[in-house]
Amino acid sequence: MQKSKAFVGVIGAGDCSEEVGKLAEEVGEKIAEAGAILVCGGLGGVMEAASRGAKRKGGITVGVLPGIEKADANPYIDYPIVTGLGEGRNLLVVRNSDVLIAFPGEFGTLSEIAFALKLGKSVVGLSTWNISDEIIRATNAQQAVDIALQAGKNPETEP
Amino acid sequence: MQKSKAFVGVIGAGDCSEEVGKLAEEVGEKIAEAGAILVCGGLGGVMEAASRGAKRKGGITVGVLPGIEKADANPYIDYPIVTGLGEGRNLLVVRNSDVLIAFPGEFGTLSEIAFALKLGKSVVGLSTWNISDEIIRATNAQQAVDIALQAGKNPETEP
Amino acid sequence: MQKSKAFVGVIGAGDCSEEVGKLAEEVGEKIAEAGAILVCGGLGGVMEAASRGAKRKGGITVGVLPGIEKADANPYIDYPIVTGLGEGRNLLVVRNSDVLIAFPGEFGTLSEIAFALKLGKSVVGLSTWNISDEIIRATNAQQAVDIALQAGKNPETEP
Amino acid sequence: MQKSKAFVGVIGAGDCSEEVGKLAEEVGEKIAEAGAILVCGGLGGVMEAASRGAKRKGGITVGVLPGIEKADANPYIDYPIVTGLGEGRNLLVVRNSDVLIAFPGEFGTLSEIAFALKLGKSVVGLSTWNISDEIIRATNAQQAVDIALQAGKNPETEP
Repeated sequence: MQKSKAFVGVIGAGDCSEEVGKLAEEVGEKIAEAGAILVCGGLGGVMEAASRGAKRKGGITVGVLPGIEKADANPYIDYPIVTGLGEGRNLLVVRNSDVLIAFPGEFGTLSEIAFALKLGKSVVGLSTWNISDEIIRATNAQQAVDIALQAGKNPETEP
Repeated sequence: MQKSKAFVGVIGAGDCSEEVGKLAEEVGEKIAEAGAILVCGGLGGVMEAASRGAKRKGGITVGVLPGIEKADANPYIDYPIVTGLGEGRNLLVVRNSDVLIAFPGEFGTLSEIAFALKLGKSVVGLSTWNISDEIIRATNAQQAVDIALQAGKNPETEP
Repeated sequence: MQKSKAFVGVIGAGDCSEEVGKLAEEVGEKIAEAGAILVCGGLGGVMEAASRGAKRKGGITVGVLPGIEKADANPYIDYPIVTGLGEGRNLLVVRNSDVLIAFPGEFGTLSEIAFALKLGKSVVGLSTWNISDEIIRATNAQQAVDIALQAGKNPETEP
Repeated sequence: MQKSKAFVGVIGAGDCSEEVGKLAEEVGEKIAEAGAILVCGGLGGVMEAASRGAKRKGGITVGVLPGIEKADANPYIDYPIVTGLGEGRNLLVVRNSDVLIAFPGEFGTLSEIAFALKLGKSVVGLSTWNISDEIIRATNAQQAVDIALQAGKNPETEP
């Protein structure tokens, strides 16, 4: 049963620099290596880079899409979940994540951070919006994933 | 990539008779044997029976839940997708299905059949609501799944 | 405070015959004359005819729209509520109605009837889907509105 | 037709200080005096104070609620719109506002500011989250409403 695994959300811009993309890819790899499931918004930029990293290491990826077409998902999404909610899908990305890792992003990413903190979920930040001391700062991919899995740990995710 | 597989929705009552449950379980088995992914509302009755059948044959199950707790999913759901939309999740079950197999159910099932037909998706009926000639009637599990996979066939699901 | 008034939902096809439109308009008039608020999906056909009737008699109309543009509302909607939920707005039409009057319609209307009955709300039918004995049949506009206001009566709507 | 009026969103904490409440009430008054419609989340704190101010001056208030009970609305809401979307209603508050005035708030308010800026809507800030230069700063109620009505002006709201 996959549902006993941790669901780690990765949020960030749909367009990103090569540097941020490299970091997101590394985070995706670490999530997969840890045996966790990667949840994201299913589109490009940070979402695609992280998904690519996860698939390279044999991980599983879930993409929660704003539209109603599975084909909108990036090529590294195993399970495209369509919503038809537009920006409202951001809340579903958060609700489906046990914990989130936030990359640089625009206002969509900010809405996700806000919802995560509102819902009491841990957010690990990698150079993201600096809007709350509740965001746990990390400086590299391994550290971000380690913190996330520790923070998101609950009875379901215990070994 | 799982997303190239057909996503077959199974809809029906959250409480069901032993007879209906047995049929749903068989449908789940056939969906798994065909290599398709089972999508459902993630709860009990028809949803649980079909999921159990799918898992017995090594299939993959996605449960789109009305609430926000993954733990609400029945024990046979691999990927519980929480929505927090209440009955609104019925539309997401339909949107995430390429084709649907409908069992006996109450008004929730009826809303899903209505949405499916509204969105132009094929619905295969096994003793379900008799409300439209557009519902394709089947009389056993194998036939229902065969019809569904044929009806739901599209470029992504071609061999 | 308008909220102490009964909110009467009117559901039916976005395209309708002249005869159905005339009946919907009359229902809208009766809703307004009774001092209730008309709730609908905000678009054409039955929705527009009923809204036109309500406004002719000085009533108030709320249109719960599938899209995000207020301009999509028909000209007789006072309060266009945009949702961006697509067909998911059907559930919000139901949730915002204390009671519903159902006209002939397609599968969208059927989904609304299904949700209404699922949520335990009274549905008065005027030549609509004949899918349940729980739908209270009416044969003319005055009777439909009388039954609806009686059925939807609750502490908030008592004089 | 009310829909030709400007819909001004007021967002802020569900609990607020007396000082902030006084300012919100004044903003509500100014919105009503300007002939605009006040949209908010329908609950307490800033939402209730602004609604109270609007009603004192004969204005109209719309409350977009997270739950499914109209009775959850504060006493100054004319049109309670229930959604059943939980925090997802925040996006509907934004979508239904032509322009928004933001008060101090927590992460829910932040999610609304984020969505507003994402959707390209003007946000006037009164001591709110300082997260973007795109937020137009105001220092008193009259100024905030003046800026909002100017910023939210569009063909529908022109005299």
